[in-house]
Amino acid sequence: MKKKAIQDYYEDSLSHCYGCGTNNPHGHQIKSYLEGDETIARYKPDEKYSAGTPDHVYGGMVASLLDCHGTASAAAFACQAENTSMEESQKPVRFVTASLKVDFKNPTPMGVELEMKGQLRSISGRKVWVDMSLTANGVVCATAEILAIRLKE
Amino acid sequence: MKKKAIQDYYEDSLSHCYGCGTNNPHGHQIKSYLEGDETIARYKPDEKYSAGTPDHVYGGMVASLLDCHGTASAAAFACQAENTSMEESQKPVRFVTASLKVDFKNPTPMGVELEMKGQLRSISGRKVWVDMSLTANGVVCATAEILAIRLKE
Repeated sequence: MKKKAIQDYYEDSLSHCYGCGTNNPHGHQIKSYLEGDETIARYKPDEKYSAGTPDHVYGGMVASLLDCHGTASAAAFACQAENTSMEESQKPVRFVTASLKVDFKNPTPMGVELEMKGQLRSISGRKVWVDMSLTANGVVCATAEILAIRLKE
Repeated sequence: MKKKAIQDYYEDSLSHCYGCGTNNPHGHQIKSYLEGDETIARYKPDEKYSAGTPDHVYGGMVASLLDCHGTASAAAFACQAENTSMEESQKPVRFVTASLKVDFKNPTPMGVELEMKGQLRSISGRKVWVDMSLTANGVVCATAEILAIRLKE
């Protein structure tokens, strides 16, 4: 059976995001997974999402991928900190972005599967801070940090 | 005659950005203008760019709009600091993003024209820092700061 992604556990009513919503047929529907103590997502953008030059991915896409991967990571890490999981949690777990900072280190190449990774920095109540990277062919194109806030039920 | 936007002065070879490229028919083609000492852009996202809920705009779009408006603002402010303009500059002026930080203050409503504004914080050589806001119906949905770097010729 195919492993379910973090986003697959979001409530239906909160799954319309263009970046990662399973209920948005037009969007990227990126899928993030918890693997040990880090999160990972892979995505190859369509060519239309080009930067100033056609051979690179535009910054907005890079930010979008890291934003959606960041909130998913926060959800998974919050569950992990409570010794549960997205699957086993008795309550819906959904985070939104309070702050996102992206540092663009190298141009992001087009036509390549991008890899986003996340690591937990800290948790305080409903706030979760996650550090991330986006790499292409093993080269770090961007790093990012997100402060995500858990939605109240 | 219709006023030309900052992006209309980008070189053709650097105008493929999904966010603001005049040569990208699939993208947003946002248009930024210098008005006095600030920059302004207005854009109404298509409904497909929804957040977790359909009545809000997803964070990636907010970041994208601020990213493209930020690099455009940097270009206009750099010209202004040299007592020239995008139109009159003897050299092509194009900035790329080194760092973008977005603080999400309120959910961004769908179906509303969003207004992005930029103000120059400082200039040092090829580096320009710009402070921005994104408002909807007069409510600040996000603030942002960008460090943009001028491309060498």
